[in-house]
Amino acid sequence: MSGLETGCFAVIFTSLRAEGHEDEYGRVSKQMDEMAATMPGYLGVETARGADGIGINVSYWATLDDVKHWKEMAEHDWAQQRGRDVYYEWYRVRIAKVERAYAFAKGSI
Amino acid sequence: MSGLETGCFAVIFTSLRAEGHEDEYGRVSKQMDEMAATMPGYLGVETARGADGIGINVSYWATLDDVKHWKEMAEHDWAQQRGRDVYYEWYRVRIAKVERAYAFAKGSI
Repeated sequence: MSGLETGCFAVIFTSLRAEGHEDEYGRVSKQMDEMAATMPGYLGVETARGADGIGINVSYWATLDDVKHWKEMAEHDWAQQRGRDVYYEWYRVRIAKVERAYAFAKGSI
Repeated sequence: MSGLETGCFAVIFTSLRAEGHEDEYGRVSKQMDEMAATMPGYLGVETARGADGIGINVSYWATLDDVKHWKEMAEHDWAQQRGRDVYYEWYRVRIAKVERAYAFAKGSI
């Protein structure tokens, strides 16, 4: 996992899941994350979804061109339209440039 | 909720919760979010934590100065040190400038 490089780009995808289609959604999400990981400039992904159905997925990319390239792929994929029709009540997308990053881990100095 | 303004700043806080102190953590998290909401330049917050303990909290701010101001407040607060000592196995922080943002909601045109 990376995405701690200053100057990289974060795609913040926040969503509320609609009810149903759990298995299909799990499968498609996994496929989309796997596809992202094969794309140029991919640095990593972090994802969390709580019991209230709110989820946040943040993927990190080396350049804005890499983000655009990934976005074109994802939009041409059927998952995008199906996302609007079936998977999500709403979603918000922000593309943001990382200006500062730091990390803490227990036991590290 | 906002944070969809181009040029605003996102503070992406990704963490793995250490076990225990559930009640205290819930209380402190709520207090910190409430304190954030009173700060200048605050635009909103999105938060999700899954059953695996991974959580992502994204707060949105009008300017980088607003982020710094909030960060100074939060770091002086006891929650920051207690976060390292007790609440988290690890965390990562990115401060990122929103370059593009859009939203979808079911039923909207």
